[in-house]
Amino acid sequence: RRSHMVVSFTDPVVSMDLLRGVLQPSFNEDIIAVFRKYQQFLDKAAENIKDNVGDDVPTDQLNTDTCRNLLEHAKQMFPEAENKISRVDIKRSRQTDDDSS
Amino acid sequence: RRSHMVVSFTDPVVSMDLLRGVLQPSFNEDIIAVFRKYQQFLDKAAENIKDNVGDDVPTDQLNTDTCRNLLEHAKQMFPEAENKISRVDIKRSRQTDDDSS
Repeated sequence: RRSHMVVSFTDPVVSMDLLRGVLQPSFNEDIIAVFRKYQQFLDKAAENIKDNVGDDVPTDQLNTDTCRNLLEHAKQMFPEAENKISRVDIKRSRQTDDDSS
Repeated sequence: RRSHMVVSFTDPVVSMDLLRGVLQPSFNEDIIAVFRKYQQFLDKAAENIKDNVGDDVPTDQLNTDTCRNLLEHAKQMFPEAENKISRVDIKRSRQTDDDSS
């Protein structure tokens, strides 16, 4: 006989983060594909920097930083709520009894 | 007669951030296009959440949060340097005298 444990499978924030985890690998591939388009500009900039400043500038890291910053600024398109949803009040409108015991 | 002011146009971090600002609008459009691909999954999840938890769950905000989190996790592909480059030492290997006075 199973005990009635309340597991938060219905927490929407948890559900959405599980979905995010599933989508992430494919999303990352798409992001890599997008960056391929901009690589020529970053490479050109790296070249200019080496010409102007010197070969000791870590341009690989600068490019990596620029990619990360592009993603960071893209997040502004998806603003956080004023009242951040951390744990939405779970009000089950339909209390389903799915206990099979 | 111009005074010799040292302006940090050669700061690589500044240069790269200027480039990032130029690329950002186009990059954002590409990101929006990528998200269009995943919208169906997010919509379906929102529908399920409303079914299971209730119509009062702010699924629009959950979707926005999920998009932002996808971008945040994508940043892991572009790790920060152990010694963060804030201001690279400017060692101009070629001191060009471009003063026209």
